[in-house]
Amino acid sequence: MPERPERPERPKWHAKPRAQRRHDTPHRRGPRGDHPRERRAEPNAPIILYGWHTVTAALANPARRIRRLLATENAARRLADDGIKPPIDPELVRPEIIAARLSPDAVHQGLLAESDPLPSPDIDDLPAGGIVLVLDQITDPHNVGAILRTAAAFAVAAIITTARHSPEATGVLAKSASGALELVPIAIVPNLARALAALKERGFLLVGLDSAAPDDLAATKLSSPLALVLGAEGKGLRQGTRAHCERLARLDLPGAIKSLNVSNAAALALYIASRAMA
Amino acid sequence: MPERPERPERPKWHAKPRAQRRHDTPHRRGPRGDHPRERRAEPNAPIILYGWHTVTAALANPARRIRRLLATENAARRLADDGIKPPIDPELVRPEIIAARLSPDAVHQGLLAESDPLPSPDIDDLPAGGIVLVLDQITDPHNVGAILRTAAAFAVAAIITTARHSPEATGVLAKSASGALELVPIAIVPNLARALAALKERGFLLVGLDSAAPDDLAATKLSSPLALVLGAEGKGLRQGTRAHCERLARLDLPGAIKSLNVSNAAALALYIASRAMA
Repeated sequence: MPERPERPERPKWHAKPRAQRRHDTPHRRGPRGDHPRERRAEPNAPIILYGWHTVTAALANPARRIRRLLATENAARRLADDGIKPPIDPELVRPEIIAARLSPDAVHQGLLAESDPLPSPDIDDLPAGGIVLVLDQITDPHNVGAILRTAAAFAVAAIITTARHSPEATGVLAKSASGALELVPIAIVPNLARALAALKERGFLLVGLDSAAPDDLAATKLSSPLALVLGAEGKGLRQGTRAHCERLARLDLPGAIKSLNVSNAAALALYIASRAMA
Repeated sequence: MPERPERPERPKWHAKPRAQRRHDTPHRRGPRGDHPRERRAEPNAPIILYGWHTVTAALANPARRIRRLLATENAARRLADDGIKPPIDPELVRPEIIAARLSPDAVHQGLLAESDPLPSPDIDDLPAGGIVLVLDQITDPHNVGAILRTAAAFAVAAIITTARHSPEATGVLAKSASGALELVPIAIVPNLARALAALKERGFLLVGLDSAAPDDLAATKLSSPLALVLGAEGKGLRQGTRAHCERLARLDLPGAIKSLNVSNAAALALYIASRAMA
């Protein structure tokens, strides 16, 4: 059945604290002037985290700078009962105050934090072993959150992406990630092709997932360190991304549908790669 | 870190055309009077399908009765260009008319259909081989849709669930399923424990996924026909469901997070089971 692609996912560009860091490493990006929007952006806009598991995971992360913590009386009592000592005092609020900051279906469980984004690691600082996931224009926050959670379950070393989410979308992503936002470093890079080249230089084997590839991932020879490259649903890998991959492989699916939700595809790819490298 | 369960997912009961069918097989349910809400429900409320892939898959399914088809001029032209002849004439409407029927972020691509739900198969009519998925109170339509899509990719024979979705939630589910709603039969049963007993009687091996189980699914002896039983995130399998499973197994996850998004868990379980039974 013919299918026209879905309306493309649009990364929502927002204030980029990591841009500051990139100014310190001009060798990795073009001359000043390449990314005018990045430099104009307010460098320290907070992100919003909500939900019991998401916020308590952030409170437990020493690298996470919390600016503000809103808690209902119940949630504050529960923090105390569980022996959780937030780095800043929670502001006691009624549940409606938290709900008003979020979309109507958001399950906040009485906790909302405003926080700085975590620092973005450099490609050069990644461990020279294990698996990293490279996301090529995957921006849906539910999908990225589920990928992050599965990445934490498979002890992935880092996620590399160009996509930045708005403060609100980051909240949704963090909720879907169920605490994994604190566990898996996310390297946000200005140019994915350059990041892939840097990974290759560091010895990573670059394997792109492509439902039309002739080779089954489970039959593909994999080695550590490995970068698994995933494209957005419908669109797949962009041509420039594909060109950088040393191997392309598909997931072997016996049924009538040959492509999966991208987080399900990531889960299968990580399972197959983990076993191949064990 | 302690975690209180999320707000429980609530199945949204709605009009149940399948209830009529169950009246014809009184041996499978209690005496009349067991499910007053079912009999009160309007038996033929339509479900809403939207999006190019979802609607064209429904149009291509001879078992799907379409009651009404709304199309924008562009979408109608595209149907004609692609040689798709709907069973009823589309009503040409402006995109806003379709958008007004859906949530603000729904991507309808100019197509909306009102349709009868597909018939629910009886457990006795399931093939005596292959894999079925049993969903214990998994109701989030995005998750169920992604599970359905992955089930179609792994040629699953049927999905068995107690959860009914509202007409609107069914639209979200169908969109996430990306056409798979037309491919994988869904048996909606009034009582999961009785359905599990019926599967066992038909020779199915019942294996429940449980992140606390000592045995790794990949090391568990599996045989066809197989029923993989999945519980909702946070809650897991209910006690009554667990008691009916012949084996309990976990997914072996090497990282810091030990539970996955339920559709990711379903994808891994299906991959492992498909390979074990190949």
